[in-house]
Amino acid sequence: MQERVKKPTFDVIGTRPVRPDGVDKVTGRAKFGADLKMAGQLVGKVLRSPHAHARIKSIDTSKALALPGVKAIVTREDFVEQASEFVPAGEMLINYRDVVRNVLAREKALYEGHAIAAVAAISESAAQAALDAIKVDYEVLPHVIDEVEAMKPDAPLLHDDMITAGVTPVPTKASNVAKRVEFALGDTAKGFAEADLIIERDFKTAPVHQGYIEPHACVASVSEDGSAELWVTTQGHWVVRAHCAKLLGWDVNKIRVTSSEIGGGFGGKTVVYLEPLALALSKKTRKPVKMVMSREDVFKATGPTSGATMHIKMGAKKDGTITAAEGELIFQAGAFQGSPVQPGAMCAFANYDLEHVKIVGYDVVSNRPKVAAYRAPGGPISTYAVESVVDELAETLGLCPLEMRLKNAAKEGTKAAYGPKFGPVGLVECLEAAQDSEHWKAPLGPNQGRGIAAGFWFNIGGETTVSLQLNEDGTLSLMAGTPDVGGLRASLSMMAAEELKMDVSKVRPIIADTASLGYNFLTGGSRSAFSSGMATVDAARSIIKQACQRAAKLWEIPEEAVTWEDGEVRPAGENAGKHKPMSLSDIGKIAGKTGGAIVGYAAISAQGAAPSFGVHIADTEVDPEDAGRAIHPSYVEGQYQGGAVQGIGWALNEEYIYGTDGRLQNAGFLDYRVPVASDLPMIDTIIVEVPNPRHPYGVRGIGETPIVPPMAAIAASVRRASGVRFFELPMSPPKVLKAMKAAGKA
Amino acid sequence: MQERVKKPTFDVIGTRPVRPDGVDKVTGRAKFGADLKMAGQLVGKVLRSPHAHARIKSIDTSKALALPGVKAIVTREDFVEQASEFVPAGEMLINYRDVVRNVLAREKALYEGHAIAAVAAISESAAQAALDAIKVDYEVLPHVIDEVEAMKPDAPLLHDDMITAGVTPVPTKASNVAKRVEFALGDTAKGFAEADLIIERDFKTAPVHQGYIEPHACVASVSEDGSAELWVTTQGHWVVRAHCAKLLGWDVNKIRVTSSEIGGGFGGKTVVYLEPLALALSKKTRKPVKMVMSREDVFKATGPTSGATMHIKMGAKKDGTITAAEGELIFQAGAFQGSPVQPGAMCAFANYDLEHVKIVGYDVVSNRPKVAAYRAPGGPISTYAVESVVDELAETLGLCPLEMRLKNAAKEGTKAAYGPKFGPVGLVECLEAAQDSEHWKAPLGPNQGRGIAAGFWFNIGGETTVSLQLNEDGTLSLMAGTPDVGGLRASLSMMAAEELKMDVSKVRPIIADTASLGYNFLTGGSRSAFSSGMATVDAARSIIKQACQRAAKLWEIPEEAVTWEDGEVRPAGENAGKHKPMSLSDIGKIAGKTGGAIVGYAAISAQGAAPSFGVHIADTEVDPEDAGRAIHPSYVEGQYQGGAVQGIGWALNEEYIYGTDGRLQNAGFLDYRVPVASDLPMIDTIIVEVPNPRHPYGVRGIGETPIVPPMAAIAASVRRASGVRFFELPMSPPKVLKAMKAAGKA
Repeated sequence: MQERVKKPTFDVIGTRPVRPDGVDKVTGRAKFGADLKMAGQLVGKVLRSPHAHARIKSIDTSKALALPGVKAIVTREDFVEQASEFVPAGEMLINYRDVVRNVLAREKALYEGHAIAAVAAISESAAQAALDAIKVDYEVLPHVIDEVEAMKPDAPLLHDDMITAGVTPVPTKASNVAKRVEFALGDTAKGFAEADLIIERDFKTAPVHQGYIEPHACVASVSEDGSAELWVTTQGHWVVRAHCAKLLGWDVNKIRVTSSEIGGGFGGKTVVYLEPLALALSKKTRKPVKMVMSREDVFKATGPTSGATMHIKMGAKKDGTITAAEGELIFQAGAFQGSPVQPGAMCAFANYDLEHVKIVGYDVVSNRPKVAAYRAPGGPISTYAVESVVDELAETLGLCPLEMRLKNAAKEGTKAAYGPKFGPVGLVECLEAAQDSEHWKAPLGPNQGRGIAAGFWFNIGGETTVSLQLNEDGTLSLMAGTPDVGGLRASLSMMAAEELKMDVSKVRPIIADTASLGYNFLTGGSRSAFSSGMATVDAARSIIKQACQRAAKLWEIPEEAVTWEDGEVRPAGENAGKHKPMSLSDIGKIAGKTGGAIVGYAAISAQGAAPSFGVHIADTEVDPEDAGRAIHPSYVEGQYQGGAVQGIGWALNEEYIYGTDGRLQNAGFLDYRVPVASDLPMIDTIIVEVPNPRHPYGVRGIGETPIVPPMAAIAASVRRASGVRFFELPMSPPKVLKAMKAAGKA
Repeated sequence: MQERVKKPTFDVIGTRPVRPDGVDKVTGRAKFGADLKMAGQLVGKVLRSPHAHARIKSIDTSKALALPGVKAIVTREDFVEQASEFVPAGEMLINYRDVVRNVLAREKALYEGHAIAAVAAISESAAQAALDAIKVDYEVLPHVIDEVEAMKPDAPLLHDDMITAGVTPVPTKASNVAKRVEFALGDTAKGFAEADLIIERDFKTAPVHQGYIEPHACVASVSEDGSAELWVTTQGHWVVRAHCAKLLGWDVNKIRVTSSEIGGGFGGKTVVYLEPLALALSKKTRKPVKMVMSREDVFKATGPTSGATMHIKMGAKKDGTITAAEGELIFQAGAFQGSPVQPGAMCAFANYDLEHVKIVGYDVVSNRPKVAAYRAPGGPISTYAVESVVDELAETLGLCPLEMRLKNAAKEGTKAAYGPKFGPVGLVECLEAAQDSEHWKAPLGPNQGRGIAAGFWFNIGGETTVSLQLNEDGTLSLMAGTPDVGGLRASLSMMAAEELKMDVSKVRPIIADTASLGYNFLTGGSRSAFSSGMATVDAARSIIKQACQRAAKLWEIPEEAVTWEDGEVRPAGENAGKHKPMSLSDIGKIAGKTGGAIVGYAAISAQGAAPSFGVHIADTEVDPEDAGRAIHPSYVEGQYQGGAVQGIGWALNEEYIYGTDGRLQNAGFLDYRVPVASDLPMIDTIIVEVPNPRHPYGVRGIGETPIVPPMAAIAASVRRASGVRFFELPMSPPKVLKAMKAAGKA
């Protein structure tokens, strides 16, 4: 690890204190989704469609309900029908008509694994017997898996009423294309006319799963008066609460959601699957209901990211200046609209300062599980295609791919195709860091290649609430509402400790349940350290202000005559030296007598989450990224390494394999090959710190950018190592060998 | 029930909605102290002293620790020695030197039942075996039980270094008298000289136990890094946290305390007994440790209220005007200083508007369990004595006891002996209500008597924190930090609903744990509805203000151009009618887009808890009390009836009976006779509402005053029914029969 530090002196920020979640995790005390046991709990299980596409003519649960130990069954009848409109749920726009159908199929089963019914029974075996006894009358329909096939006029239609949005005139016929998006700047025809070289390529990427270690799990308990408790592994428990209340037609405040420790999410735990079922079953049975997915369920019924078909065309002058760029992106949405084609289109060319650019994207449904977010949704896919073309341009022009990127890199003042002008962004710094690295300069052995690629991600802000209590002994209790997936508790404690000039071990961070704080949007979009951090700093500053007020009251001097310095409240100006300075621990003691508890409470909608860039060099184990400010460097490195690992899997091995029957053939980690530790090289990281001017400590998100560049970097590297250029992911060993043989390279 | 209503129109206040805690309590879902089971929990048990007074020469735990299934033992060595000084813990002043010795005896066992050691083991039987195997070498010392005996110069000394406080010059010799207090006004010698009749009597009351249904219980779990969770039945979990942190030397924020539902407290659950032991055992074993007291433990080792010996002298003119009053109160403290003699002295003559008054009190230790608070600590005891003398004055002078009280009643402007001038207080109104009642006028049968007595209590305010979240659908989540013993959740929801003009069912009240809110002093001193209510109203008003700000932002008009009326935000003045009014549900929806979650957060130190008076008529089933404003009348009636019932027990049956060996002989509900339902008459209530001007809804405390008058009222009634006047409590059947026979009345 190298740090390229341009930072002011901090006491706590940038150090590596013991992780507050560490002890519980290494001792096994930490409670994950499946770890809660409630007295008298029932087992909930889901009946899933064996068909990729089928009309559900009837569901007969009578026999199942009569079996011993079977307590309740829920089907499509038990959920409230929803209007087909996009309504806000936190930062997201959600079409609950689709969500209610994804939670339990209504008219049709739209993919193998689609939930049809859920049972609650006294044991696993009783629940399984009930599933076996439910009689579903299906009319099997023709299905379509591939996104390009699904766009064809004669493709089987998933939704009879789906009219493509974003097209003028409005189409009169339904199709599987939910939406068309377009972003453009300048005149690409003019730009291509200025080019000395134009390269145009088709790309295909496979859908890959987030592959979190912990499957979805929850326990719901609903009382006779409708008060509900829900324990769940999620990236956003307020979002879960909102979704469940909407689908069940309950008041939001009736559902109190506690987020468990989480064994990874990567975007995949931002939606609901089991939660509304568990609540509905608990309401029927008046018993707690626990539901846990198997790995097969996770693969068949939860969102992977989109697979995509892409066409990229770029032109450049001999000196490497990119003159124009065009792209077409076709993204799989799964069975319901909502692929990340829009952010994919926004990211595609964001690495470059371009005058002429145009990108078009399509959101296409097919008989696959509905996609879910996956780190920087859409970004890695379009970046893979664009960066591969940039690599080929550089290669063909005989230029260094890193220098060609430096020449064209987006920088402060660059206007992005999707609208905004960038502020200070660190892409140039990242590229220079890569260029300076030992590894970039190191010689390669035989059959080795070296690839480089850059990547961009927005990062977001949004609704965030933090409560920071100064206790009577001067210690702090910190409540945040964004689940801690990657070290949030450590980062927030450090920001509070920095602000209040105290030992970080004196801050106890806790992730609050939904009844304990105002609304928090989820941990996702690389927002939690940024926005909960901003709220924590606000809360800490509020404590400082109150501490000054209390001391002023006690000393009977005006508030303006009091200052906060070096972690103490001091009399200032003409009062300086007249009273003994007070530490936070002194202030904590007098809180009750001077007006009550001192609590910093911040409910904000964080603005100004700065975008970030990253550069990956494949085959050289160097990974420089712009982190904004690294609060706890160990966690930042972990995020970088994790992103690289997931990128390696995506580039080389991971894919969903469907049979002609529309059924998934590799729904398990034995056949869906994720990289394991022994597969992986050492992944070195360089943290490039270009502080975000809109955050008090310069924080940017760091959870997503690291997965944007690796596929393209690895593709460029494989190209150089093998002599063959690949346009499809994964570049799995049989495919590489076959292509090399065909090209006479092996 | 009759209500004497002088109230403005409210929508919610004063109605009787369904109790939010009701469903869980009737279905058995409510989790009390002993209801939590944690995976892998150990059983904790306490070894208690069989001796009333003994030096502990040594404690040998080696054999016990070697027994199978025994995981840890804690003794005096495991707790931090504390300085002998009174330090603040919330509103209380606590001497931790005594607390640490009460939790586990150090130099000496000071009463039968005093905790000596605690063990954690895998089962009840293993824990019991360990207790049996602990070898304690005691040197048995002479003991003293009675408070008058304990004051004698040759009495066995409990604490060699106890020098009576409040006496000038400072005594040079240690004694069992911890403190002398005195309050006086005017010149009593002059007052007695003006009297036509002087009556002087001695009284004795027995200690009585709070008799909560639920014994003390807790579960503690401490992790390897010292983070602790504590589940406990308590009246104040922040206070438990403070005590435990202090005794264990831990940071306050390391201990997260959740209060269970509580099966009664009445003041007895304001101190710690098992909690520090459970935490210490869990820290040693790294396992959860559950501890539950038996009823015998509750009687022998937790605080009853003081028994007392009192001398009262009062003089009156023939017309009933009281000219002077004097009193001497000797209160049992139990083994450590801290009887409620001070509030007892303050309450003694507070019913009356007196020019000449003097009262002296003594706090006396003896070999009994340390007393704990019990509803209006001290008040019922001194009131019993004073009101009995007033009754005898009226009887001797041939006056109506009610009219005599009306003549002398404290009112607005009365200066109390203990200092303050009363504001508007409702004693006259209560007496008039009693006078007007059907029952006061009803004829009595043979052998029946009717007694009346009045009583006073302060009620307190103090540190209180409430968080009120407006959810995205307009429902509210309310977090309060004072345990709900007698309907707090209902009252707070109603105040929030009243303020926000919404259906009370849309407010979900929850009692927060100590990590979730700023400091809350305990539920006690009749403060919770008053101070948490005040904080709730503050929080609700903050929501209204924020709602107006958000609407102004949305409408792009100044905040001053927006008003809150009838539960809606409306454009006002020249903007009136230009925008559609917004309900709270509309505002909830736009919160995220207009600045983040809307949360009303109030951390206050409530001031102005008004004193209240009550009048009881015994034998007539009428019980009029000044409630301030009755938020939820059903709960207020419950408090009144409960106070009366406990007063009946205190007056007629309850007492601690000690053998000459200093051991308690009736440590169980079979022998310690509390009134059961079949013992009790119908207890009617009249709620007299004199709103407290210092609370937005006029709330006063109502939890304590109802227990102040009943003993005196019953004594007066027994006097009239039996023809004999009693000066000692309880007036149990054998005592009454014996006295009547001696007087030739039976």
